[in-house]
Amino acid sequence: MSKKKFVKAVTSRDDDFAQWYTDVVLKTGLADYAPVKGCMVIRPYGFALWENIKNIADGKFKETGHQNAYFPLLIPENFLRKEAEHFEGFSPEVLWVTQGGDKELTERLLIRPTSETMICTMYAKWIQSYRDLPVLMNQWCNVVRWEKTTRPFLRTSEFLWQEGHTVHETKKEAEEETLRMLEIYRQIAEENMAMPVILGRKSEKEKFAGADKTYTMEAMMYDGKALQAGTSHYLAENFSKMFGITFLGRDGQEHYGWSTSWGVSTRLIGGLIMVHGDDRGLRIPPKVAPTQVVIVPIGLEKGNIGEKADEIYARLKDKFRVKLDTREEYSIGWKFNEWEMKGIPVRLEFGNKELSEGYITAFRRDKLEKIKLSFNNLEQELEDLLNTIQNDMYNDAKERMESKIYKFDDYYKLKEWSKDSNGFAKIMWSGDMEDEEKLREDTGLTIRCIPFDEEKISDKCIISGKDAKHMVYVAKAY
Amino acid sequence: MSKKKFVKAVTSRDDDFAQWYTDVVLKTGLADYAPVKGCMVIRPYGFALWENIKNIADGKFKETGHQNAYFPLLIPENFLRKEAEHFEGFSPEVLWVTQGGDKELTERLLIRPTSETMICTMYAKWIQSYRDLPVLMNQWCNVVRWEKTTRPFLRTSEFLWQEGHTVHETKKEAEEETLRMLEIYRQIAEENMAMPVILGRKSEKEKFAGADKTYTMEAMMYDGKALQAGTSHYLAENFSKMFGITFLGRDGQEHYGWSTSWGVSTRLIGGLIMVHGDDRGLRIPPKVAPTQVVIVPIGLEKGNIGEKADEIYARLKDKFRVKLDTREEYSIGWKFNEWEMKGIPVRLEFGNKELSEGYITAFRRDKLEKIKLSFNNLEQELEDLLNTIQNDMYNDAKERMESKIYKFDDYYKLKEWSKDSNGFAKIMWSGDMEDEEKLREDTGLTIRCIPFDEEKISDKCIISGKDAKHMVYVAKAY
Repeated sequence: MSKKKFVKAVTSRDDDFAQWYTDVVLKTGLADYAPVKGCMVIRPYGFALWENIKNIADGKFKETGHQNAYFPLLIPENFLRKEAEHFEGFSPEVLWVTQGGDKELTERLLIRPTSETMICTMYAKWIQSYRDLPVLMNQWCNVVRWEKTTRPFLRTSEFLWQEGHTVHETKKEAEEETLRMLEIYRQIAEENMAMPVILGRKSEKEKFAGADKTYTMEAMMYDGKALQAGTSHYLAENFSKMFGITFLGRDGQEHYGWSTSWGVSTRLIGGLIMVHGDDRGLRIPPKVAPTQVVIVPIGLEKGNIGEKADEIYARLKDKFRVKLDTREEYSIGWKFNEWEMKGIPVRLEFGNKELSEGYITAFRRDKLEKIKLSFNNLEQELEDLLNTIQNDMYNDAKERMESKIYKFDDYYKLKEWSKDSNGFAKIMWSGDMEDEEKLREDTGLTIRCIPFDEEKISDKCIISGKDAKHMVYVAKAY
Repeated sequence: MSKKKFVKAVTSRDDDFAQWYTDVVLKTGLADYAPVKGCMVIRPYGFALWENIKNIADGKFKETGHQNAYFPLLIPENFLRKEAEHFEGFSPEVLWVTQGGDKELTERLLIRPTSETMICTMYAKWIQSYRDLPVLMNQWCNVVRWEKTTRPFLRTSEFLWQEGHTVHETKKEAEEETLRMLEIYRQIAEENMAMPVILGRKSEKEKFAGADKTYTMEAMMYDGKALQAGTSHYLAENFSKMFGITFLGRDGQEHYGWSTSWGVSTRLIGGLIMVHGDDRGLRIPPKVAPTQVVIVPIGLEKGNIGEKADEIYARLKDKFRVKLDTREEYSIGWKFNEWEMKGIPVRLEFGNKELSEGYITAFRRDKLEKIKLSFNNLEQELEDLLNTIQNDMYNDAKERMESKIYKFDDYYKLKEWSKDSNGFAKIMWSGDMEDEEKLREDTGLTIRCIPFDEEKISDKCIISGKDAKHMVYVAKAY
């Protein structure tokens, strides 16, 4: 049987980053374009990655006392209209259901773009007393935002996400919850996806429609652009007042509940691709990789290689997510290319030579390096190697991010830099929305966040020369 | 602090079964009515039950080689029109999206009632050769069917389900897959939910719109009505022909793929309630119970009861799904009532007396019996008890079902029985749809299935007197 030729090579990411991204998504089988405007199909490889991220997040939500629930997909129009800012923010992207069978509906229904309005309506019914608080719920679901410009994972008309919605007795508890969930998002991104992030607060202009404060984690992609990778909103009493979430307090008085909401989505996968991918395709950190280790025996037709491969697979299969590739219709080179493109963290290769000398060759996808693992102590050495890879991937991405963070105190220089901005800039800002808008018009840069650890670069706003109020990160963004 | 009085008692199931069902759903916190026609909110307790069922099913799907994926919620109108029977079956219940933001869409989109049309469109693109087969995918998602009469879990306008969609090289493989998945559904129902089912094939009238054959599992509810609890469809080449799923065969010729689809939904929870519930509320089989064991210490204010409760909880918490109830504002009676209503399989109670004598009292929710478990050997005895409860619940339900299966060979007697039918009837049927329709008009009974183990009751169809072709189960159904 003639061996198949590997023909799936991806565009170089330095030549054309957008095309590189599309190649990686399509050719690795993460997703495909769906025949509906702006929608994607998440294929099994992409979905397995999402399941791993989801399971980690779900475990952390449950550990912190949250419970999953499920609320309806469809929301009556009048619910969305209750909170004015929220309506204004979401109505341009909303899909409307107007007919059921061959009948017109009496009231239009919208497909949820987010569920505050539905969930607050139910909370108003369920919450009576301080004894019912806190309410800590989360749902994993699909949402739809009818966007004009879309890209698989990064921005799609329909996407999968989780949305947490909580109500608390006090302002302080709600504020703490908002930050607790941001910290959990940081752990998911940094500790599991090896994707370093900058934490901070959104400006008034960039915050969630209806929130009092929005906190964000911003990740830097390979091309230096920012990706808003997760947000946590402190809603104060805003939604409680509009939806009537009141409770009898310990003082015998009626109070409004203090609420939060927070979400991460399949967008995280877009971030993972653009932080870790290289010219050979994906690189997936071990903790979230659908397959952590692939075994590619060499010279299957010879001696006892096949038996040894089965033996190694049997030793590893309950400890790691492992695949054994014994396909005969593909050449070794083809297999290597395929698994590298798919970003499997470790490939184990061996033939008679390795076996006779008591080792296995491990290929590290992250560094493209080969090392020897002892046959007898394979399990332990492999576990150590996967941990090393996880840490190295994080450190490399962190180092790259830090090397692309610049400081500016001169607007002319910032504008020049922005023409080909390859990273984030730290600048001083007056805090005024008009200056923020001028910046965007002049440069295409947006304020990504006001970080928790502001640094003083100068006394004056770089844009207007007014007194500076905050140091902010600015960047072009996905 | 005055102890709260327990005021949540449910209606007796023999007095008013429909009201009993509603009481159980609402008062145990499984679900609530949503403010959208025919929709429900699945509350945390109901969702935890769904997660347990889902995880068991998902594990079985993966063990048999299926992979999860995700396809779009929205389907272009022309896709649904491609398969004529399928369109006719689903279009009366479809919700149509016609507007995005403030613009009319150029083509109406429907919210998926099931995803054959979308998934087959993608399969046509992905499948080229016999080497690509079988394709074995599943998705967990929400679907919408705009139904007239709804009831939480049993029939809701939106529900959660899984839908498996597979394509095979041969007719035989597709037929085997259809039955393999039916068998997995049987295991989920009988071995995990302790819900006995009857397996068989649907009549032409009752089969899935577009299928060649539909297989079903039918469960008997407490009131004797049938619940179609899961279906598996052999689609032959029907959808492949309409959607162009072809592959290059081993013979070098172009062939149509042989496909299947199969699904179970949140409806299973409705079945669980109506098979196992009693006048005190829910009874949940241990294998799927969100909480398997609740510890209720008695006399918390005395001696070292609190410490002992913590110790027992610590011993059990990694082995079982266990809750410790040390709330002070509720009386012991209230707690007992609440946990019984919620259907927790085992309640552990103890005070100073038990401790000094070295045992713990276990209350079995299924039999309403108390037994003694040894303090020292608690883990093992509890595990055994949960297994016993699981088996007893299945055997009790099975015995009840069998005691309510009747045979009829006289149409007058069948009609009399049908007025107050409390179970399933086995009858002989000609196989003609006109007789099936006459039966429904005369009696309200529908053919639930043609079982795999047909028994010969007589030679003649009980309805028309024609030659009998099949023995069938008939019943009123949810």
